[in-house]
Amino acid sequence: MSEKTLVGSLIIGQSGGPSSVINCSAYGVIKTGLENENITTVYGAFHGIKGVLNDQLMIMDEEDPAELERMLYTPSSALGSCRYKIADPDVDDTDYKRILEIFKKYNVRYFFYNGGNDSMDTCNKISKYMNKVGYECRVMGVPKTIDNDLAGTDHCPGFASAAKYIATSFMEVSRDSQVYDTGMVTVVECMGRHAGWLTAAAACAGVKGDGPDLIYLPERDFSMDQFIADVKRVWNEKKNCLVAVSEGIHYADGTFVSEAKTSGTDGFGHAQLGGLAARLTDIIKNELGCKVRPIELSLLQRCAAHCASGTDIAESFMSGKVAVESAVAGITDKMVGFKCTRDENGYKCEPELFDLTLVANTEKKVPLEWINEAGNGVNQGFLDYCMPLIQGETGMVKEDGLPRFVKLKRIFAK
Amino acid sequence: MSEKTLVGSLIIGQSGGPSSVINCSAYGVIKTGLENENITTVYGAFHGIKGVLNDQLMIMDEEDPAELERMLYTPSSALGSCRYKIADPDVDDTDYKRILEIFKKYNVRYFFYNGGNDSMDTCNKISKYMNKVGYECRVMGVPKTIDNDLAGTDHCPGFASAAKYIATSFMEVSRDSQVYDTGMVTVVECMGRHAGWLTAAAACAGVKGDGPDLIYLPERDFSMDQFIADVKRVWNEKKNCLVAVSEGIHYADGTFVSEAKTSGTDGFGHAQLGGLAARLTDIIKNELGCKVRPIELSLLQRCAAHCASGTDIAESFMSGKVAVESAVAGITDKMVGFKCTRDENGYKCEPELFDLTLVANTEKKVPLEWINEAGNGVNQGFLDYCMPLIQGETGMVKEDGLPRFVKLKRIFAK
Repeated sequence: MSEKTLVGSLIIGQSGGPSSVINCSAYGVIKTGLENENITTVYGAFHGIKGVLNDQLMIMDEEDPAELERMLYTPSSALGSCRYKIADPDVDDTDYKRILEIFKKYNVRYFFYNGGNDSMDTCNKISKYMNKVGYECRVMGVPKTIDNDLAGTDHCPGFASAAKYIATSFMEVSRDSQVYDTGMVTVVECMGRHAGWLTAAAACAGVKGDGPDLIYLPERDFSMDQFIADVKRVWNEKKNCLVAVSEGIHYADGTFVSEAKTSGTDGFGHAQLGGLAARLTDIIKNELGCKVRPIELSLLQRCAAHCASGTDIAESFMSGKVAVESAVAGITDKMVGFKCTRDENGYKCEPELFDLTLVANTEKKVPLEWINEAGNGVNQGFLDYCMPLIQGETGMVKEDGLPRFVKLKRIFAK
Repeated sequence: MSEKTLVGSLIIGQSGGPSSVINCSAYGVIKTGLENENITTVYGAFHGIKGVLNDQLMIMDEEDPAELERMLYTPSSALGSCRYKIADPDVDDTDYKRILEIFKKYNVRYFFYNGGNDSMDTCNKISKYMNKVGYECRVMGVPKTIDNDLAGTDHCPGFASAAKYIATSFMEVSRDSQVYDTGMVTVVECMGRHAGWLTAAAACAGVKGDGPDLIYLPERDFSMDQFIADVKRVWNEKKNCLVAVSEGIHYADGTFVSEAKTSGTDGFGHAQLGGLAARLTDIIKNELGCKVRPIELSLLQRCAAHCASGTDIAESFMSGKVAVESAVAGITDKMVGFKCTRDENGYKCEPELFDLTLVANTEKKVPLEWINEAGNGVNQGFLDYCMPLIQGETGMVKEDGLPRFVKLKRIFAK
């Protein structure tokens, strides 16, 4: 940590799949940056690191402050995102040289990257390169991922809002799917290729009495036989069944259920019907002959800002704010994560700085002890973890009965 | 209209596919019935007319009033629904004799049926039968359908909330689908087999600058060639394209696009991949080679009570209330619809009574003059019609960050 005052401009970039609140953390960076006397100009990189490489930097000082505040309630990446994997500088330093050139051109002394695992990796590489070539620049990771799979931090900004939307939607679908006395098996597919956090969030609906009957996460191997037996049991009990499945569920041999043409483990040879949910309901229909309904939450779960968690909005903003304050204070090469306590005094969340090296390229999964023995549900441990995160509502003020998202002028630096 | 005071009990039943606000109209009937001195008991039929036939009537007087009020914010049919098509009484009057028996058993003098076209038909048949056999019972239809396809009334309770959710979700998906500079073609499928009201509602998102580029309704024949050309044009202009399609779009020969194995009109022979959206994005991917994303709003659009329209909630309640008040005043065999004005003084909605004979089994479609010439969008006429309906927010108070839906005791009459 350098105690030295560092004066210069700031770049904030967004990367990877967006979330309902990634703009809250970006706004935390932008607002705090605009208000800090050591920061001369705040730039938004257009489409993440690509905007730096292409010299496409939006001057955030030129934006109307009241309009900028709408970032708190605007989903997706307002600055534009990218999926650009930066090379290993020891193999190819072309990008790094270009980044350095741009940093020098605009006297960039603060670089903030807002994203998931890959983004933390990008941060880390840029930070190390700048250090190596002796260009003083403080680099901070501002986390975001609905997948909630970043290591170190208690949870990731973006997860809670997706979780709240998923739990809310499960409650609503649960009511809807029980409306006829003829019953129905409904399978709802949630995002999460390797980690089941989002699918597990469906369990929060059960706290209010309207949750799924069965939950399958990628943390446990999936067995089609067991799945069919589980659904049959629930169906026989209540003539209805609501199932939450993660897109990433896989057989013991690692084959994704969504991709297996013929299951390697159980001999089911059903043709694939689009998504995983449709595949599973097709199998259940053949087995039980009941009415079925596949639902895929798709992009809706990661952009439903109208149903964002107030806690998530506040924490996301805080992570961006703390990133700037820490960098100005001399800290670099860290990610701002959260350290939380949940006890008789309630839930408390404090910022905590993590080494980017630790965070980059590690995936945090749902602890196995939070999954029930049968592998078809989660227990109180998960609920105690998740419920505090989905508290509070968005402060979004509607216009004409609808959201009004931020509209940036996008004035580019020359 | 009989001026005679009629004292007796009341039955309210719900039928057909539910909506976010069908419980608001039922609550309007229940609350008004409970407060009216001519009405001795308010019964809720368990699963619609099936509950009458099976003598399964829930005593609403036994429910806690504060809990009942939660019906205003609870989606799906709280009393249970059914899809039971009652026979023509001239062909088979078994059901009618049974209904009469139950009506006599509980001295039912008021019957309210809450549903869509088929429910209005059921209402109408029961009303005519009771009249024929000389059993005095006032029968009223309380409309509901997200499809908005009931004749006579300006609009149907339930449509506006689904429309608000669809417009909101389109705004969010629009932002999300534009996040990368590589672009994407996103096709979102909305409900509506024969009428395109819900799909057209996506256009409301455009009022806030975040709407779909193309909209296809079943009111116009679909041409795959034209669709591909439309998407290509938009893609070439902005390297992104968001499309709203109704599940009911069909070729000129009447074949649903979702069902056509090989199109009868344009020779496309792609294998069907689950839903319509997946089929269309598959074709676009083959044609343009771009990234695509199919999204099906499925049940979410009809049960998203957390995003219900305040206007819809108030109007739905009012339709149930007016139904009871009208029946007590001597009116029978009518449906409570809406007569609305939209002018320089704003939007006004008044209840209007419609003959059940007129309403039953007629489908109201989106007027062709509200669809643009190219058949790929709607115009200001539709927006002027729809925007007032989606105004206002739900009064849902959340608990633990989530909805808390009504829990009925379900005490059955003996």
